[in-house]
Amino acid sequence: MSEVYAARRTRLREYCNAGGSAAALVSRPANVRYLAGAAPHGAVLLLSKTEDLLVCAGPTADRPTQERPDEALRVKTLPGVGGGDPAVAAAGLAAGQGADSLAVEEHHLTVARHRALGSVAPRLRLANLGGAVEQLRVVKDEEEISCLRIGAEIADQALGELLESILVGRTERHLALELERRLVDHGADGPAFPTSVATGPNAGRPGHRPTDRRVEEGDFLSVCLGATYRGYRCEIGRTFVIGTAPADWQIELYDLVFAAQRAGRESLVPGAACRDVDRAARQVLDSAGYTEGLTALTGHGVGLEIDEDPQLSPAAMGKLDACVPVTVEPGVHLPGRGGVRIDDTLVVRPEADGGPELLTITTKELLAL
Amino acid sequence: MSEVYAARRTRLREYCNAGGSAAALVSRPANVRYLAGAAPHGAVLLLSKTEDLLVCAGPTADRPTQERPDEALRVKTLPGVGGGDPAVAAAGLAAGQGADSLAVEEHHLTVARHRALGSVAPRLRLANLGGAVEQLRVVKDEEEISCLRIGAEIADQALGELLESILVGRTERHLALELERRLVDHGADGPAFPTSVATGPNAGRPGHRPTDRRVEEGDFLSVCLGATYRGYRCEIGRTFVIGTAPADWQIELYDLVFAAQRAGRESLVPGAACRDVDRAARQVLDSAGYTEGLTALTGHGVGLEIDEDPQLSPAAMGKLDACVPVTVEPGVHLPGRGGVRIDDTLVVRPEADGGPELLTITTKELLAL
Repeated sequence: MSEVYAARRTRLREYCNAGGSAAALVSRPANVRYLAGAAPHGAVLLLSKTEDLLVCAGPTADRPTQERPDEALRVKTLPGVGGGDPAVAAAGLAAGQGADSLAVEEHHLTVARHRALGSVAPRLRLANLGGAVEQLRVVKDEEEISCLRIGAEIADQALGELLESILVGRTERHLALELERRLVDHGADGPAFPTSVATGPNAGRPGHRPTDRRVEEGDFLSVCLGATYRGYRCEIGRTFVIGTAPADWQIELYDLVFAAQRAGRESLVPGAACRDVDRAARQVLDSAGYTEGLTALTGHGVGLEIDEDPQLSPAAMGKLDACVPVTVEPGVHLPGRGGVRIDDTLVVRPEADGGPELLTITTKELLAL
Repeated sequence: MSEVYAARRTRLREYCNAGGSAAALVSRPANVRYLAGAAPHGAVLLLSKTEDLLVCAGPTADRPTQERPDEALRVKTLPGVGGGDPAVAAAGLAAGQGADSLAVEEHHLTVARHRALGSVAPRLRLANLGGAVEQLRVVKDEEEISCLRIGAEIADQALGELLESILVGRTERHLALELERRLVDHGADGPAFPTSVATGPNAGRPGHRPTDRRVEEGDFLSVCLGATYRGYRCEIGRTFVIGTAPADWQIELYDLVFAAQRAGRESLVPGAACRDVDRAARQVLDSAGYTEGLTALTGHGVGLEIDEDPQLSPAAMGKLDACVPVTVEPGVHLPGRGGVRIDDTLVVRPEADGGPELLTITTKELLAL
């Protein structure tokens, strides 16, 4: 794996040099992990002319993780109790090595930390690295996709087991906790994000936090969960009906969201504009009159974070590449009645390779449980 | 409750006016919640000359919460899909209202957001609010302490139930998940922080993340958990021995950490210097030769965040006031062997009121389970 991390750092260094900065300071944890193989609590990565250095906070601030940094990387742990801010220490090191410019992540560093960097190294010009590492992260290699695939399998298993149990009378909170336990049982590092379980009038609400409401006959039940596996986060969302037979309005709404989600999935081809994928899904809902209350996104990239570039939204710029994992997750929520959300994680693949690869394979039939 | 929030905002406004800023923008979520009663995802609070305004992201970005903002507060929700950055919108509003200076939280705003504020309101001078709201939050009112007390009861219950179950053979991960389920069972909003369960050589490691290691006979088992109740977060940590009888080294190490923790607790009086409380606990461990590998802090404030001011550390400035809740949590970890950590949440109270109020009442005897 070490060559993978080294190659990523080389790409970033080339990008920085092209932008006129000889040195870069990466502080956003997911970016540190992407380039260094691990991101101990508070650690930053310094790429200077002479070397790549992972600067970690004092030993006592080191929250042990199961990931080890790339062995090719020098690791410097700040001495003493507390240890100070690794970003400030790294800026001091860069200045000491004679760097005249240091590119930093202005979308991650706070104003206060940025000022502290300037104070410790007043002659160092602080440039902006912007979202350079986030952009490198968009297209995944097969190793990364393999982690997402395993995470998706785990989420499918956890969800499948829940569906075999008795649901009526149980609260959203308990169902969410049980799903998270099952994720860990099946080998996940943990949930990829707080598991959402929504019943009755809550069903279909984006980002719903589980409450003490109990599952009742006739409810819609929507569930959104994901597993983290080796740091990679996937997402699956499904909606079910509780009871023997769904009502007509439930079937109609389900079919509509299903059609929107399928339209989104089918438009996932390399070269497709992100906004066109969004529009494919959104216009199915729009044309049925559900223009209000739609979410800002109908999907987004996933990887070391659960919400990454690209964004599938009406204002999104850019096109999809092969090997980009995204969610497709349109939904409709009717205030007071509930709603439907269907969410898959897929990898964009060329037609010649069989088109988009569906990672979350739980059925999307409307199940009556 | 509305008067409580209004009074807090008045105090902050007075602080700002004294510093020369007529308007303040609060963006750190715990600070927004403290002043507004709720912090919808991304919301910021603008205190201007003319009014107090909670600016929320677009309706679709609104993650529903169970908390409602103070009804005395005007709420502005940004229109449209996506909705933009509430902090930028608030700066525009402040400029439109004729403010010449706006105090912002430079320790929370990123450089990129700060620049966006400057762009939307170029004639507005951006000053630094610093940690003013954090400082207001240090001394709690009895309502806040009551939330912490209930949270501590919940954590005590969850821990007590775990101790009655069979532990040998179960993994750290499973025990942690079970504790978190029990916290929710007993009415917590959720865990106050990721529950730590550490066995054998992991026991006593600060911030240990649960692994797949199973509990074995003869192990130390250290557990650290907390409940969030109405937003308030408490913390309890205990160490046990697995099996019929602890080994001599285990008893010695336990007694030492217990003595250190007691010394810390007993030094919690109004007016005590934070560093003296730290020293009281630390010197017990120091004088027994455990100078290496001690944590940077032996305790810290708790409240809407699990790690607040004051810090109990060798370099801490400042003194304790009455009605400040803090943890006292010294520990020793011996690499390869394990260790002991004992952690309570207490409220500083005057001697006349009976001294420090212990919120986490689970026994600190060395239990052999």
